[in-house]
Amino acid sequence: MHDAAMPVLALTTGEPAGIGPELVVMLAAGGTLDIPVDASGDAGEDASVGARIVAVGDPRLLAERADLLGLSLTIIELAPGESLPPPRRGQLPVWPVALRRPSRPGVLEAANADYVLETLDVAVRACLAGHAAGMVTAPLHKGAILEAGHAGFTGHTEYLRDACGVDEVVMVLATDHALHGDRPDWQGSSALRVALATTHLPLREVSDAITGPRLERLLHILHADLSRWFGVADPRIAVCGLNPHAGEEGHLGHEDIEVISPVLDRLRATGMRLDGPLPADTLFTPRHLAGVDAVLAMYHDQGLPVLKYAGFGRAANITLGLPLVRTSVDHGTALDLAGHGSADPGSLRVAVSLAAEMAARGGGN
Amino acid sequence: MHDAAMPVLALTTGEPAGIGPELVVMLAAGGTLDIPVDASGDAGEDASVGARIVAVGDPRLLAERADLLGLSLTIIELAPGESLPPPRRGQLPVWPVALRRPSRPGVLEAANADYVLETLDVAVRACLAGHAAGMVTAPLHKGAILEAGHAGFTGHTEYLRDACGVDEVVMVLATDHALHGDRPDWQGSSALRVALATTHLPLREVSDAITGPRLERLLHILHADLSRWFGVADPRIAVCGLNPHAGEEGHLGHEDIEVISPVLDRLRATGMRLDGPLPADTLFTPRHLAGVDAVLAMYHDQGLPVLKYAGFGRAANITLGLPLVRTSVDHGTALDLAGHGSADPGSLRVAVSLAAEMAARGGGN
Repeated sequence: MHDAAMPVLALTTGEPAGIGPELVVMLAAGGTLDIPVDASGDAGEDASVGARIVAVGDPRLLAERADLLGLSLTIIELAPGESLPPPRRGQLPVWPVALRRPSRPGVLEAANADYVLETLDVAVRACLAGHAAGMVTAPLHKGAILEAGHAGFTGHTEYLRDACGVDEVVMVLATDHALHGDRPDWQGSSALRVALATTHLPLREVSDAITGPRLERLLHILHADLSRWFGVADPRIAVCGLNPHAGEEGHLGHEDIEVISPVLDRLRATGMRLDGPLPADTLFTPRHLAGVDAVLAMYHDQGLPVLKYAGFGRAANITLGLPLVRTSVDHGTALDLAGHGSADPGSLRVAVSLAAEMAARGGGN
Repeated sequence: MHDAAMPVLALTTGEPAGIGPELVVMLAAGGTLDIPVDASGDAGEDASVGARIVAVGDPRLLAERADLLGLSLTIIELAPGESLPPPRRGQLPVWPVALRRPSRPGVLEAANADYVLETLDVAVRACLAGHAAGMVTAPLHKGAILEAGHAGFTGHTEYLRDACGVDEVVMVLATDHALHGDRPDWQGSSALRVALATTHLPLREVSDAITGPRLERLLHILHADLSRWFGVADPRIAVCGLNPHAGEEGHLGHEDIEVISPVLDRLRATGMRLDGPLPADTLFTPRHLAGVDAVLAMYHDQGLPVLKYAGFGRAANITLGLPLVRTSVDHGTALDLAGHGSADPGSLRVAVSLAAEMAARGGGN
């Protein structure tokens, strides 16, 4: 359906009232639609692939936002599976999904929650049917989707897990320095890949959500997908403790000794290279990050503040464990910035590069 | 008792089997005992003060570690309140406290827990009596002190709170770029001051420990002491939410709306400059850190991984809310490194500089 050397990526607009649609048109109009990326993971080679982007969203919405920003953009409506025209700067192929209500920048409209979810469904189907090699998502607004009646909605990551019918996925944030398969140089670099054992949970529910079987499933996914999508052979993973000081030998909580350590010991015995459980504020220092391919943090605010500090605007969100490639921006809908053209497409560009690279490397889905 | 322009700092050895004693002798023998620091907080002026250090610990222990490292050091035993000799490189004044048992590097000895606590008591008394302008602590080993029978011991910070008879203290970590009173330049800098609303608690106890009255007390201390010790007039403080995404409008926990926001609103109404509650992974980015004098994180692993990532080896720990100046290193006892002379005195040097600067600025205690 698509040239393996030129993967097609489905790019959803996300919340139409946010900055997602304008980031999509900025990427397209800026000529960065087809991004050459290094897929070899080997700085010595010059192998690179491009990516074709197809937006998934409302064609009129995209045209309006391009007008609003004064960008020249020709939209080409296609159905998934139809051949794409040769790439041309300023042209944006779109798989259309209709807005339920007109959308104004910065103004949430509950009826459009179904629009946002439909763009995801279209992208997932296209990936599973082989019409796209991966999907990249612009930010959605959880509150708007919840208020539209989709109770229990917690985000892209969990929605895509259910849409793909898998039991477990792993949310990973990566800075752009970490995008290429070669092991990052931690000394003086801001390269980081941080996976989360729990994602969008109130803090008081985190401790009980960390179970041995769950950690074991997550580590298997992380280990396998670091090889498959990132080209890291025999990855080394550093694991944070749950409690401060990783529980300080049981003086600050027992989960580190009773839940986390036994899983790590069991997996080490199978040959996995695992460090930890380490105190989070020890792990995120050069001595402990050296040679590490990914960090597994136990919860959202243990791992992501460092990642955002190290790489904000140059980081992307990746979902591992799906039968498809999925990346996303590392920021929200920024309703206050929408329509002004001042949003920074840096993270979306990183997300697209990364998805292209993963698709080229992982192949065969 | 001491020259106000040349404050005396009491430097405790910490756990004798750890790297504390050798860091003390490295500082002394390296000629960095008397550290000129900029106390003006004004890069345009050339005002600077020195600090005299007096070690608090076992003179024989310090002499042995100096020998072990091949450092030439003359130890001068004094009682608190006795006049110090003129500063001379390679001389270390010591207020003696006797080890209970001989100490070997790397080998914990339960009986010496009382030694460690006595060094703290001596330093506190010296500060309160005006014989020292502040105290700097090398790391202790919590497990060793607990195992010696001091049940409930959770660390220097809480011990000093009780020793000084105050109800509430605030633990702050600061990178060295943040040590001078002028507002840090966040853009491209690693300057950070991070205060913690809770410190050494199992994660599952954190949510209930965050109460409105406690936050209000902590913010008053932080606000007052940023002025008093750091010379920051009208400080601006950014406050993290408790839950991921600061609770995402109540979808990920209610404490951010019900506990934290009302306190911030109330204190803003009194004129305090407070940002938040902000998602931790939003707050720790340049846009939100710009112009902020300190961050208040809700718990240990929400704030300290970023701080250590940004400034490991160049950061210090400060206790605010005490009637004395107290700083500390940002690392542990490193039993595995003890006696090898390979430990890095960088954080201790920062802690000493900072204490000298605070003592010169805050005066009158």
